[in-house]
Amino acid sequence: MAGTNRMAKLAQRPIGMVKHEDFAIEDGPLPEPGDGEFRVKLEYVSLDPAMRPWLNEGPSYAPPVGIGDVMRAFSAGIVDASNHPDYREGDAVSGLFGVQQYAVSKGQGVAKLDTSLAPLERWIGGLGMPGTTAYFGLLEVGKPKEGETVVVSAASGAVGGIVGQIAKIKGCRAVGIAGGPEKCSVVRDELGFDACVDYKADDLSGQLKEACPDGIDIYYENVGGVIQDTVMPLMNQFGRIPVCGLISAYNATKPPTGPNNMRFVLVHRLRIQGFIVFDFADRAQEAVDNLGKWQAEGKLVMREDVREGGVEAFPDVLNLLYTGGNNGKLVLKV
Amino acid sequence: MAGTNRMAKLAQRPIGMVKHEDFAIEDGPLPEPGDGEFRVKLEYVSLDPAMRPWLNEGPSYAPPVGIGDVMRAFSAGIVDASNHPDYREGDAVSGLFGVQQYAVSKGQGVAKLDTSLAPLERWIGGLGMPGTTAYFGLLEVGKPKEGETVVVSAASGAVGGIVGQIAKIKGCRAVGIAGGPEKCSVVRDELGFDACVDYKADDLSGQLKEACPDGIDIYYENVGGVIQDTVMPLMNQFGRIPVCGLISAYNATKPPTGPNNMRFVLVHRLRIQGFIVFDFADRAQEAVDNLGKWQAEGKLVMREDVREGGVEAFPDVLNLLYTGGNNGKLVLKV
Repeated sequence: MAGTNRMAKLAQRPIGMVKHEDFAIEDGPLPEPGDGEFRVKLEYVSLDPAMRPWLNEGPSYAPPVGIGDVMRAFSAGIVDASNHPDYREGDAVSGLFGVQQYAVSKGQGVAKLDTSLAPLERWIGGLGMPGTTAYFGLLEVGKPKEGETVVVSAASGAVGGIVGQIAKIKGCRAVGIAGGPEKCSVVRDELGFDACVDYKADDLSGQLKEACPDGIDIYYENVGGVIQDTVMPLMNQFGRIPVCGLISAYNATKPPTGPNNMRFVLVHRLRIQGFIVFDFADRAQEAVDNLGKWQAEGKLVMREDVREGGVEAFPDVLNLLYTGGNNGKLVLKV
Repeated sequence: MAGTNRMAKLAQRPIGMVKHEDFAIEDGPLPEPGDGEFRVKLEYVSLDPAMRPWLNEGPSYAPPVGIGDVMRAFSAGIVDASNHPDYREGDAVSGLFGVQQYAVSKGQGVAKLDTSLAPLERWIGGLGMPGTTAYFGLLEVGKPKEGETVVVSAASGAVGGIVGQIAKIKGCRAVGIAGGPEKCSVVRDELGFDACVDYKADDLSGQLKEACPDGIDIYYENVGGVIQDTVMPLMNQFGRIPVCGLISAYNATKPPTGPNNMRFVLVHRLRIQGFIVFDFADRAQEAVDNLGKWQAEGKLVMREDVREGGVEAFPDVLNLLYTGGNNGKLVLKV
């Protein structure tokens, strides 16, 4: 493979779930860094739920990935050639380097990583975008108070697992929602949530009521759809719903419909608020510092689910996010 | 009628729109005030959209009206007998006096009214709960900034008409949504909104786009349903949606469904927030003072739609709110 760069390029806009033919796997020449540039040999590519909406045309918070472009992704690797004064061979870095084996960069949006504190793959997971998303969404949008009950969906996922653990650090009751007994036991036993309910089992509403005897003060929303519909009536007065993601709708081919939950918003004076982690970009260092400290103190368990298979496995591995096939932060080794 | 008190009592819980047989019109003896009490001869009863949900069983922000109880209502009148040191014959007062001709009170929740500043009926309208609801919902929940665009539904109604005028006072572009050309012209020409679109005409979305060339920063929600669905995609980033009422759903016999609008909440980082005017009870005087000042300065036009017919007309007059039959704050003369 030396001398070539394998890339996953968007070939056509997917309809519904991503398919192999939506991406072209291409080998190109090894890119050479120009003046003021450096090259990264990528080791890990982050798989994130937001990738699916990035593939759609139409307005979003980020422009869609263009047809023929290398798929956008956060990835991490080691600088292996540099004409940039601030980056040297051997530096560990992360950034929007895409789904490929090598990337050339001028340093924009690139973070240098201290691999003595945490392994490389964690810097695109719990100490990367998913971690800072959990941090700001819960603390700045949700504004938890000690003793409150925080429910988070996709609780065994990259963001959800950290949300619940930060909730515990802040003195809240943390209740997860996850799919299947295995994930629920990870959420409870490994991540230390107070409870986890299984949305694939019967009577989600009854399970949630039992797990949240004082109602729900914050629902950290990662999924939308039926799970949101079930949570809404259980929200306490002045409850908050930070809207981080809506993974249940990302592969939908027509707009989903559901019960109109506005009644609860009104009667219980709820606040539903969307956010994007980039809105807090100027405070990213604060989040990483706190997450790193909590991790070092053993208060924050971070789990990666590393998949082999290289760049060509990208479409299959991405779909794991939407079928619930991953357990922890999903990362592709390239 | 002297010597008797005509009352509208809840006879059974309505299903859908209110019907005559849902209320019993009863004549009782004139109530006599005891020690520390006074009696009010009521002149005007306020008809408010929230009355319909008050008739349903089940949790809300206020307990349901009981079967056999006098219908709950804000009303205004003149004290005609008093054993209370703070209230004298001839005092004009408002309070939760119900749909009846006479009420006895200890003064709890009662406001004394200065009828030299505004007529009695206005003190249960623009200077009463609808006015303070408009005031706090727009200013404290919506938090308008100069130059922003504020859209309000039910713009010719008691709350909506004031919301748009306060938006203008705060330097915003005010756009109303109302039903039919007559109401739209009142909203534009009498209330001074910059524009008003007719939801009964074609292409509400196109009309709104034209009326809001810079998008929508605040949507003050009074109605819900299809109108909300149409507004959501036009919201600007970091837009706010104070949820004041959902009149389109109040007579529904099963939970309404609609497009899932959460996508816009996420992508545009919207804040949807329910509120009840009682949450701001400790600041009510501030609102009334400002509303009264703006009214006196001619910056705030308040319109009442006073209906005759007495207590027995209550069910018919109430339904006008849900069929769009009123134009301005709806008040029943009793």
